[in-house]
Amino acid sequence: MTPLNETHDPNLTSWVASANDGQTDFPIQNLPFAIFRRQGSSEAWRGGVAIGDQIVDMAAAVQAGVFNGEALAAAQAAAEPTLNNLMSLGPQPLSHLRKVLSKALQTGSSQQAALQACLVPQAQAEYSLPARIGDYTDFYTSVHHATNIGKQFRPDNPLLPNYKWVPIGYHGRSSSIGISGQAFKRPKGQVKPPDADVPVLKPSARMDIELEMGVFVGQGNALGEPVTMAEAEDHIFGLVLFNDWSARDIQPWEYQPLGPFLAKNFASTVSPWVVTMEALAPSAPPSVTRKATRSPCPT
Amino acid sequence: MTPLNETHDPNLTSWVASANDGQTDFPIQNLPFAIFRRQGSSEAWRGGVAIGDQIVDMAAAVQAGVFNGEALAAAQAAAEPTLNNLMSLGPQPLSHLRKVLSKALQTGSSQQAALQACLVPQAQAEYSLPARIGDYTDFYTSVHHATNIGKQFRPDNPLLPNYKWVPIGYHGRSSSIGISGQAFKRPKGQVKPPDADVPVLKPSARMDIELEMGVFVGQGNALGEPVTMAEAEDHIFGLVLFNDWSARDIQPWEYQPLGPFLAKNFASTVSPWVVTMEALAPSAPPSVTRKATRSPCPT
Repeated sequence: MTPLNETHDPNLTSWVASANDGQTDFPIQNLPFAIFRRQGSSEAWRGGVAIGDQIVDMAAAVQAGVFNGEALAAAQAAAEPTLNNLMSLGPQPLSHLRKVLSKALQTGSSQQAALQACLVPQAQAEYSLPARIGDYTDFYTSVHHATNIGKQFRPDNPLLPNYKWVPIGYHGRSSSIGISGQAFKRPKGQVKPPDADVPVLKPSARMDIELEMGVFVGQGNALGEPVTMAEAEDHIFGLVLFNDWSARDIQPWEYQPLGPFLAKNFASTVSPWVVTMEALAPSAPPSVTRKATRSPCPT
Repeated sequence: MTPLNETHDPNLTSWVASANDGQTDFPIQNLPFAIFRRQGSSEAWRGGVAIGDQIVDMAAAVQAGVFNGEALAAAQAAAEPTLNNLMSLGPQPLSHLRKVLSKALQTGSSQQAALQACLVPQAQAEYSLPARIGDYTDFYTSVHHATNIGKQFRPDNPLLPNYKWVPIGYHGRSSSIGISGQAFKRPKGQVKPPDADVPVLKPSARMDIELEMGVFVGQGNALGEPVTMAEAEDHIFGLVLFNDWSARDIQPWEYQPLGPFLAKNFASTVSPWVVTMEALAPSAPPSVTRKATRSPCPT
């Protein structure tokens, strides 16, 4: 994990006053990314950075010449209609961009006038997916969650013997992932009550959510090349909240032997703002910080 | 399914002599699509159509002005670096293109000279994936296969009660699908022999293949909008062979409760040539032809 630096200083304030109220999710120490445009407009989708109740329009800021040097390539990638290219750059260019944004948004910055013209109020924005999602994998993390869910399907054997040895996960459907707040249709599916001889096709009556942490993997690796534990975090761009909508009445009938399918793939929703790993550095527990010092280790 | 038309006439021959030998997979009645370039070159990837032992370079043919009218849009889409746009056009434009290609490649065609200059020998070609694959779903089709595989994991209960009621499938990993013939690394994974107390990490010693039929879905549908049985085939672009490489020693330990995962997602390979549904029309059993007449039905 990136070490703490001046962008994490809790005493930093911004010339965007709403960033300093102590209540906002978006103080100058956060600076998450999203893809946005003005609500109801036909503007091009582009990247933005949250600050208080405003969005720094990255396309406008690049046009205004706010960025140069090592931060320019990352700023240009952040201005595109998806964040895929930004995510693929890896942590160093992203860290340069964070430093420049932090300085430009600080109280007293000489770039206030230039950036002020690039702000869009969050109240006027609509959001798109942060990235084209190539593959989506749902990991069965948290032994408490696995035990609770397992009880619904295998009351006498909720936690299987592999759980504590190998990461349990399954591939989900990428194409039905959308943005938090979107409407979607209640799914229909086959339900077989225990006392029925045959299943019936009907709208789900037992809709559920699982609030999960979504991880955007940025830098890739070649097929078949392992990523070491020490290197793993360099491949993570950032985190979102992920709502794994589930049709619990459809799931038990269909899920064996190949796992969750139609009961879990009709819609999944992510929060629009992606919080970078660097922004989260002050929240990492000591063990994570220690692992991340990346002392040489055998590969 | 598209009705039979003049492109299916078994008596048609081509001015490409190798298409007429009665042995080739690529007579003028087939005309499948691939993405190709000359081996070892840095040429742009583009679409091609197989005829005998040759490939019609669609980018060159569009440049040469071979196409116009209703076939032009499809021909231009077939000249791109992936076939995604061609696949999304649906069956009508594709059928126009097939008719024009069939006429231009027939013995005696006035376009022989123009198209001759657009041929690349298959022996000199290398192939890329036909399309960017957004999602990949593996269906557990064939009751015989399901019973045989089921016996490996549940000898006393190979076929579960849902099998004959609901399509059983799981989402696979799109990003590890490649082209037939590619080399890939033998996967490593956790294996737990029945008599061992704990699993061990080792290279798979029980590599297996499942030879499957791969279906490229072309035209999409809006999220939550069902596709009727009568309309289903209009959403299918064509078929490939699909090799579902499987690590059978890794699979039993990891696959419960969420289904196949690392034992099946390290590499999957497809044949480069996609055979269109229209080319397959003469091979459809009578029941399929009947269903495909698309009499009005309630939605």
